[in-house]
Amino acid sequence: MDLVEQLNHIFYPRTIAVVGASTNPEKAGFMCLENLLEAGFRGKIYPVNPGLSEAFGLKAYSSVKDIPGEIDLAMVVIPAQLAMPVIEECIVKGIKGVILITGGFREVGTEFGSELQAKIRDVATRSGMRVIGPNTLGLINPSINLNATFQSTLSLSKVGNVAVVTQSGGMLIHIAHTLTDLNIGMSKAIGLGNRCDLDFDEVVTYLAQDEETRVMILYMEGIEQPRKLMKVARQVVKQKPILVYKGGRSGGIDRATFSHTGALAGEYQFYKAAFTQAGMIEADDLTELVDITKALIFQPPSSGNRVAVLSVQAGPGIVIADRCRRLGLRLAELSPATRQRLRQLASPLSAVDNPVDIAWRTSEFDVCREMFRVVLEDAGVDGVIVAAAFFPPGMEVVRAVIDIAGYCGKPITVCLYSPLGMAYAELHALEESRIPVYPFPERAVAGLAGLVRYGRILREFD
Amino acid sequence: MDLVEQLNHIFYPRTIAVVGASTNPEKAGFMCLENLLEAGFRGKIYPVNPGLSEAFGLKAYSSVKDIPGEIDLAMVVIPAQLAMPVIEECIVKGIKGVILITGGFREVGTEFGSELQAKIRDVATRSGMRVIGPNTLGLINPSINLNATFQSTLSLSKVGNVAVVTQSGGMLIHIAHTLTDLNIGMSKAIGLGNRCDLDFDEVVTYLAQDEETRVMILYMEGIEQPRKLMKVARQVVKQKPILVYKGGRSGGIDRATFSHTGALAGEYQFYKAAFTQAGMIEADDLTELVDITKALIFQPPSSGNRVAVLSVQAGPGIVIADRCRRLGLRLAELSPATRQRLRQLASPLSAVDNPVDIAWRTSEFDVCREMFRVVLEDAGVDGVIVAAAFFPPGMEVVRAVIDIAGYCGKPITVCLYSPLGMAYAELHALEESRIPVYPFPERAVAGLAGLVRYGRILREFD
Repeated sequence: MDLVEQLNHIFYPRTIAVVGASTNPEKAGFMCLENLLEAGFRGKIYPVNPGLSEAFGLKAYSSVKDIPGEIDLAMVVIPAQLAMPVIEECIVKGIKGVILITGGFREVGTEFGSELQAKIRDVATRSGMRVIGPNTLGLINPSINLNATFQSTLSLSKVGNVAVVTQSGGMLIHIAHTLTDLNIGMSKAIGLGNRCDLDFDEVVTYLAQDEETRVMILYMEGIEQPRKLMKVARQVVKQKPILVYKGGRSGGIDRATFSHTGALAGEYQFYKAAFTQAGMIEADDLTELVDITKALIFQPPSSGNRVAVLSVQAGPGIVIADRCRRLGLRLAELSPATRQRLRQLASPLSAVDNPVDIAWRTSEFDVCREMFRVVLEDAGVDGVIVAAAFFPPGMEVVRAVIDIAGYCGKPITVCLYSPLGMAYAELHALEESRIPVYPFPERAVAGLAGLVRYGRILREFD
Repeated sequence: MDLVEQLNHIFYPRTIAVVGASTNPEKAGFMCLENLLEAGFRGKIYPVNPGLSEAFGLKAYSSVKDIPGEIDLAMVVIPAQLAMPVIEECIVKGIKGVILITGGFREVGTEFGSELQAKIRDVATRSGMRVIGPNTLGLINPSINLNATFQSTLSLSKVGNVAVVTQSGGMLIHIAHTLTDLNIGMSKAIGLGNRCDLDFDEVVTYLAQDEETRVMILYMEGIEQPRKLMKVARQVVKQKPILVYKGGRSGGIDRATFSHTGALAGEYQFYKAAFTQAGMIEADDLTELVDITKALIFQPPSSGNRVAVLSVQAGPGIVIADRCRRLGLRLAELSPATRQRLRQLASPLSAVDNPVDIAWRTSEFDVCREMFRVVLEDAGVDGVIVAAAFFPPGMEVVRAVIDIAGYCGKPITVCLYSPLGMAYAELHALEESRIPVYPFPERAVAGLAGLVRYGRILREFD
């Protein structure tokens, strides 16, 4: 069975066993079962626990071996010292993949934990059964209503095209919650935990051919074989962008990263250089990570770094210009023809330099649209950032942005902020038209800078 | 009349004239009048326009001179070329302050505009009438339902203790909208525009004695007399923190900042050093600005930079540790006694280093509370960051944080994120208890780092 087939069984299971199923709401074995059911998974679910005859109205089994028919995926939530015989039974049963949620392995730093993890890896490798974890959250696949984790809120995740792969369950939850609130859907999300078997490189390889995935997000603390991932990434980034956020960057917290998922975080500078060489886009924090993701999901990569800024209020335009320079973008030099035309269109009090001041024109659809058109057509402009605070009489500017979006194939990001959701209609209309909206000027720049970075990667790796 | 008396007339006017009042909804003179009325200002409002007999059911006057009784404040929204006679009439009438909303002065770069602005400054200075602007948005004072601007959404601002002073109307709107969404109230907010008369130093002096103001936010592009502000700030920061965000940081956008409010942004490095010397807290972007503001409004300054991190999920704890180091905070070295006690309390699988792993204990109020107490009591700990993703069965941790907050007088910030507002009750309860909540781990660090910075300023300037 090749990797794609193996992981298809795991990401698209038809049958799932929950080993360590429980009827006690405080137990992870209860939560896993409940989440599978509540999320609306339509395959078969088998609780496994020798002490139960049923759970959630489902017949319970003493062992996976007693379950009739094939099992694609087993979620294992039992104490570490009981894990080995269960894993062996899963192999005997011919289960394709195990999510070993249980902790208490390499990450606790005991000889017992490390040896047990190594043994599990060995038997899994020999058998061909794939193991996710141990010490992991599990995975979700919103397109089939699959929440194979103990975190109920992940069932709220929307169907979409972002894949999230993390070493940390907590960061998976944070990233997934944030994407959900931004109305950005996910194709898959998986916590890898201690990675005794399944690791980043294989998951990225799988996601590269996954038609539902268009953008990948990796959260990584420390991996043993970075070169394997880098080699894969260099190929994958030609087709799909890979964003990466590195945790455990500073010396002195290796102890914390180790006791988290049993891996040393290692030298951050090494990782940083490796990410760049592999064409991965590194984000500095969660905010930047989601801001770039949103841009990549909605807009085309930019063919260059020359940005035109059109701002309804001058101050945010200046803040955007500052941030452009910080992030390596250049303020485009508008051609004399462009400036002349803008001069005719803009308010006589407005500057038609870059940033272009569109104040007092925002209630005029045709004028706004024409200003955007002229700027987008300028051969010296690679991308555009539009900034507006919500000003109820002047929202024609939004209609104009929507109308012109996609013109010349140049990317656009928008900063629009309103208090108490007042601009909900405008925001919704923009994002329905695949124009990413950001609440702060600096974040609209982060989005466009991500498109510039990916455009450069595409040219460099072609 | 001293400065405080002068500005009291402007921030607490009993009577307001709107010169250039209009019944055309597209005109700023309409918006100003409408906003005063809609926000619920309870003083007298006088529309002034020789072409109108009434507006919004109010009797209109041909000139401010015809209005019976005293006028505290005039909002002037007429073309620049008509401004001089109006200003002179305001002086004759004895009006205390004028908000000159009109643009077309120094910022447009014409000799006419510069000279006119200088003339207005001169007549205002001689008369003692204060002028705000020109080229400004106006001001708000939520405690008296005053929205003396053309931006209707500012009427949504809540009453509170943050004062916002900006050179840019657009940035005032952005900052005010954000504070409103964060449920942080404002004492006053004012756009200074071209600052022909009233400037940052005087407003800061006024706000220093304003009992409703506890924290000040300044957004600044370029000022002519930075030393005046710095001198004032050095005194004020002993009582109240001053946050500053500098726009126009990079060379090459001086043209943009000039055409914005008629001031050159100047050398950023100079400003940066000046802010530090004056004890002002500089924010790097809007996100950091509001994150620090929230911390300063809710929590005490920190007596040192040694931080303990308690995290429900290990990944966010590691991200917090990274960001602590970046922002100059140190991970506290917990005492052996603290660690021993935590070892008894924590899950056997959890690390009791710093970050302290509180996984699997979050549904136990007493255990959580005791862990917080032990950490807060540790003499090596100056402040605490608690991180949790929303996990419905484990929200006792929030009750414990609320119960222990204020213990030992050490500051706490919390990272808590939930999708679709699911943790609204927890969030609300935390902030009702004056514990600032942040959606991302890095932002909870930014908040605590602000408290550490202000604590250091208090010690240095004492």
